[in-house]
Amino acid sequence: MLNESSVALGKVRSSIRELFEYGKKRKAEIGEENVFDFSIGNPSIEPPKEVRETLTELLNTCNQVDLHGYTSAQGDYGVRKTLADYTNERFGTSLNADCFYMTCGAAASLTITFNAILNPGDEVILFAPYFPEYKVFIEKAGGKVIVLQGLPGSYHIDFAALEQAITPKTKAILINSPNNPSGVVYTEDEIKRLACLLKCRSTDNPIYFVSDEPYRELVYDSSIKVPYIMNYYDRSIVCYSYSKSLSLPGERIGYVAVDNKMEEFADVYAGVCGAGRALGFVCAPSLFQMLVGKVYDKTSDMSIYKANRDMLYDALISYGYEVIHPDGAFYMFVKAMEEDSKAFAERAKQYELLIVPGDDFGSKGYVRVSYCVSPDTIRRALPAFKALADSYKK
Amino acid sequence: MLNESSVALGKVRSSIRELFEYGKKRKAEIGEENVFDFSIGNPSIEPPKEVRETLTELLNTCNQVDLHGYTSAQGDYGVRKTLADYTNERFGTSLNADCFYMTCGAAASLTITFNAILNPGDEVILFAPYFPEYKVFIEKAGGKVIVLQGLPGSYHIDFAALEQAITPKTKAILINSPNNPSGVVYTEDEIKRLACLLKCRSTDNPIYFVSDEPYRELVYDSSIKVPYIMNYYDRSIVCYSYSKSLSLPGERIGYVAVDNKMEEFADVYAGVCGAGRALGFVCAPSLFQMLVGKVYDKTSDMSIYKANRDMLYDALISYGYEVIHPDGAFYMFVKAMEEDSKAFAERAKQYELLIVPGDDFGSKGYVRVSYCVSPDTIRRALPAFKALADSYKK
Repeated sequence: MLNESSVALGKVRSSIRELFEYGKKRKAEIGEENVFDFSIGNPSIEPPKEVRETLTELLNTCNQVDLHGYTSAQGDYGVRKTLADYTNERFGTSLNADCFYMTCGAAASLTITFNAILNPGDEVILFAPYFPEYKVFIEKAGGKVIVLQGLPGSYHIDFAALEQAITPKTKAILINSPNNPSGVVYTEDEIKRLACLLKCRSTDNPIYFVSDEPYRELVYDSSIKVPYIMNYYDRSIVCYSYSKSLSLPGERIGYVAVDNKMEEFADVYAGVCGAGRALGFVCAPSLFQMLVGKVYDKTSDMSIYKANRDMLYDALISYGYEVIHPDGAFYMFVKAMEEDSKAFAERAKQYELLIVPGDDFGSKGYVRVSYCVSPDTIRRALPAFKALADSYKK
Repeated sequence: MLNESSVALGKVRSSIRELFEYGKKRKAEIGEENVFDFSIGNPSIEPPKEVRETLTELLNTCNQVDLHGYTSAQGDYGVRKTLADYTNERFGTSLNADCFYMTCGAAASLTITFNAILNPGDEVILFAPYFPEYKVFIEKAGGKVIVLQGLPGSYHIDFAALEQAITPKTKAILINSPNNPSGVVYTEDEIKRLACLLKCRSTDNPIYFVSDEPYRELVYDSSIKVPYIMNYYDRSIVCYSYSKSLSLPGERIGYVAVDNKMEEFADVYAGVCGAGRALGFVCAPSLFQMLVGKVYDKTSDMSIYKANRDMLYDALISYGYEVIHPDGAFYMFVKAMEEDSKAFAERAKQYELLIVPGDDFGSKGYVRVSYCVSPDTIRRALPAFKALADSYKK
């Protein structure tokens, strides 16, 4: 009688959410400092100081009717122009303001993109492990999710499997690099090879290359580059968010950038505008549009995440864990010490460690450890990680 | 190949939007002060001073990680509790925090509601004149729009037509009172009669009563009450927005309130949560959630809209126009002086008056005049309105 799929989605708690609720209860029981919660991808670092300064300046100097008023549906023209210029300078693209569509964050960027390009039954290929909401977004837009496993032990792209998975129904490939949950960053060679394959296989039925980039700014070694997909492929769509780079996940601000090199650009961009309209987005929050138009090149202090990563990675390796080395994002994908990662995560709770089984991310046998926590939490949790590992050695 | 319906929606400009673009061009040609733009429903009054004060206080006193962090998907618990308490105090309901779901504004409230309750082919009844995006939202959610004309000359509800229009496929009735574009406010008797009819006809197939309430606070006479639908009908869903009451349309903040008196409450609320998730909303903007949790009972200075209404209404009547008397919102629905309202709006342009033909709102023969402009604009536009009327008397 009601929309069953919406009701089901509203009732099923993700395992991340369940763990979060368990953690709240447990913290109330034994004290917050005694529970080591590595379950949630909520930035733990303050926004850069320019965020508060700029918000305050906007509130003190702008006409308040204009500041809080509707922008055009695509977003404020000046902001979009600034972002286009910055992207061109940074990546050598030739984008203009009308390639950008401001959104309420990356989730909105993705639902808008998929509702623009998909027809019922169209296939979207993703690589496991992947952020579980992708499936929800794609299926709601009428698409079918095709999951390919990454290469064992590295989670880089398995091109042989990809060759086989592309069919005339393939409408898009979605990547997320740096990856949630593995922290893997695809290399330039991989992106080149992917683009090349898409070009070959995209003759009668164009395939779109969609990149979900909330973690673009979160890479920890100067040798690691995150290739910009528009430099390799014309049918590119970039879904960006400032949630993690500026530590503003609750404010819902990001954009879709459509590559103007594709011949059907005008239709794809119109599809983005139309999908945003039909889904009820109206415009992205205006104050935060103005903000990112001014602090677009700032980030939170990423050195803390890097220090967290190094401390946790080195310790886990020394305790005997197998860990996918994370080049970016703030997650570590750790091999469970028994086949069933749910049982492993359950056993971790005995040591007050909250970690997420990898099954939800489409890859069995691993757990996700979010290290966007205070360095002190990691330091204090290390004995628990050691004890957990030791419990399997008995 | 792309999603045709999204592409089409992105390409078709609404007539409001077209007029807006024409106005921009014309203002550049002859000077801003010489074009009388009554086309857009963008609040012209500053937000109440508490908005800037509270935003500044939140930025200066809160932990910035928490302030800008994810809230739960339904919205911050404290904010929802505050809104439930306030609603109970104001309307005598018995709602709790978990009846509220914070949204990115009324458009999101509506798309989320319809994606929660509709299955393909379900019918939603609306009363013309109506806000044209309703059709876009309902059709995207798989529903079919059934438009009923209001009573001629008053645009109140035609119950005889409604009796006939309800079928076993009717899933919801959507009202918007105070109404955009007519300013009509339904009386308590009308809401009672509507509720009574819905109860009778809602036996095997429950019918939901959905109220879109962005204009609830915009009524101009103490004798005018806007009945709260939950007081008359159990299967009520209220879609609220702070866009107009706090002059924050660009910030996208509102809520869905689901009546806990309906027996299937848990499923409907779960459907709302699931729809919000699948459409990509994640959570409503966090800073503005915190804001409305503190200024929920404030409004912009509505006396300016009232003065505008009185000045414009009295003048138009004296010039010989037929006008639906607006009890609320900031629109006036004026009878065109020729059969074709598009031709009438076109002729108005000769007098530099920008007004919107009513056809888009589902009612022919009228134009919409938005009086959310400065009183000075109205004052200076009056001779043009007079000249337009006189041009039909020759």
